[in-house]
Amino acid sequence: MASNEFDLIARYFEQQKVSRRDVALSIGDDCALLEVPAGSQLAVSTDSLVSGTHFLSDADPVLVAHKALASNLSDLAAMGATPAWVSLALTMPGPDELWLKAFCEGFFALAEYYNVQLVGGDTTKGPLSITITVHGFVPQGQALTRSGAEAGDWVYVTGNLGDSAAGLSLLLGEKSTDDESLKATLLERHYKAQPRILAGQALRGIASAALDISDGLISDLGHILERSGLGADIEVDKIPLSPELCQFESDEIKACQMALSSGEEYELCFTVPEQNRGALDTALVHSGVKATCIGQLRSGAGIRLVRDGQELDWHLHGYDHFAE
Amino acid sequence: MASNEFDLIARYFEQQKVSRRDVALSIGDDCALLEVPAGSQLAVSTDSLVSGTHFLSDADPVLVAHKALASNLSDLAAMGATPAWVSLALTMPGPDELWLKAFCEGFFALAEYYNVQLVGGDTTKGPLSITITVHGFVPQGQALTRSGAEAGDWVYVTGNLGDSAAGLSLLLGEKSTDDESLKATLLERHYKAQPRILAGQALRGIASAALDISDGLISDLGHILERSGLGADIEVDKIPLSPELCQFESDEIKACQMALSSGEEYELCFTVPEQNRGALDTALVHSGVKATCIGQLRSGAGIRLVRDGQELDWHLHGYDHFAE
Repeated sequence: MASNEFDLIARYFEQQKVSRRDVALSIGDDCALLEVPAGSQLAVSTDSLVSGTHFLSDADPVLVAHKALASNLSDLAAMGATPAWVSLALTMPGPDELWLKAFCEGFFALAEYYNVQLVGGDTTKGPLSITITVHGFVPQGQALTRSGAEAGDWVYVTGNLGDSAAGLSLLLGEKSTDDESLKATLLERHYKAQPRILAGQALRGIASAALDISDGLISDLGHILERSGLGADIEVDKIPLSPELCQFESDEIKACQMALSSGEEYELCFTVPEQNRGALDTALVHSGVKATCIGQLRSGAGIRLVRDGQELDWHLHGYDHFAE
Repeated sequence: MASNEFDLIARYFEQQKVSRRDVALSIGDDCALLEVPAGSQLAVSTDSLVSGTHFLSDADPVLVAHKALASNLSDLAAMGATPAWVSLALTMPGPDELWLKAFCEGFFALAEYYNVQLVGGDTTKGPLSITITVHGFVPQGQALTRSGAEAGDWVYVTGNLGDSAAGLSLLLGEKSTDDESLKATLLERHYKAQPRILAGQALRGIASAALDISDGLISDLGHILERSGLGADIEVDKIPLSPELCQFESDEIKACQMALSSGEEYELCFTVPEQNRGALDTALVHSGVKATCIGQLRSGAGIRLVRDGQELDWHLHGYDHFAE
């Protein structure tokens, strides 16, 4: 059976179930032809996942696909955007149909959940990697950005932090546990983070700045501070930790440090002016996502980690691909 | 000097000169925020170039960048679209600043020529590869697609064919020449093909179908035929060959076969109904691009190569990444 590039693409990627009315022309031509609704801006983000850097080469392709698409959707969530279309560039060593079938299963399951249509891409031969570009809509002028925060605004995060790092430490064999159920839970949280799409949309008009936590809170919050020309005091005891993380890492300080530097969390970090705090509580009820206030912005620069009123001298850093 | 991921991105990618009014928010946030003009559809295409598959690992980064962006812009050209924005996902083994500087030089030179703004992307660690997503505009309902051709329509190509394959054969050491000037010209044509943006725009309302030649005419024309449910007779003596190709490959038949299967040409192949042939001649004058009629569509299926009224039994095929 001939299995050329075009057959491969056709067989796996043209079978998706999502079919949006704003897609005039999808996969199979030189370009997709797409229609952005009147009154909306287009939000676009691109992320790559590289085998050996972002996932292990023998990782379950269902999970790799989920992670690749979820990390991109998370960028839309951070802008308060509604997902619409996705392009997928897949580089693989050869036409491994079993891998491709499983990858598509994970990819389309998440895409269907958010009614996102695959509109194009490329399949090439080479070391395994995945680059995804997502497109979404946001009402004109209402996107959440990294700038716009002011001194006195409160700092929040959605969900819990640190589970992804705990799962990664299990994957890499850096830490272990005899509790198989705990292990399964933390691995699942590493691979199957849910992008906070509804929460992001709910934050429009309420948050003064927002982003998603992909390189670690301590690193990502820094971007908001730089853009807004501010500093922040973060109360480490308020960092939301899951019961599973506390079980996995019983040293409270280490668990907290893990949460502060854990990348690929895909929770949102955002800032809220005092007068919007009431509206926030109401807005998030509908998204089913908890948000925890962990500190406050101040004039100055940098992040001060505080516990019991004392500044801590923890030296933490986020994830940097090119760090030595 | 610390050289982390964010510094690298900031230093090289935030210094571009293009600044478009339809870009509300560019590099540096979770997403770019973009505005599509009223009455236009958005045309989107993604292409990957992988070291070792699409270019040699020691290739000049200026040329690699040109080729990567040109191949994507060529997809917009094939739809008759006007380029606007580009996302760049760059995977590289380490923070090689010399390489990055040269890459940006090639990338931004071409981007500036077409007034295309880099609006986002990702920089990751891994085997060298480049994935680009381009965005362009096309007036509602006027895009050139691969379907829509009818029996009797004439088949055209822009420019000359085969020079890219000749340059590649030099690069790979499959063929050689003592003529250094000829060598330089063919290598330049392999690496620095110009996307036929103006020609593509001029073909709106004139061509019945179009695409760009990325995998070889014999392969790409097949896509138009499949989509339109037709066959084609191609007169091989009409395939436009450059004087340099004829000098490099003096065997006329081999030169012609090279032209028919040469990928990465980034010329347009398009079909024109009889009644639009006059309009075509007028329209292309302004683009400065020649177009040559090489055959005609007929009912049936497949491509018949014809010479002096005789059908040829040449067995040619286009480029397939996954072919054994």
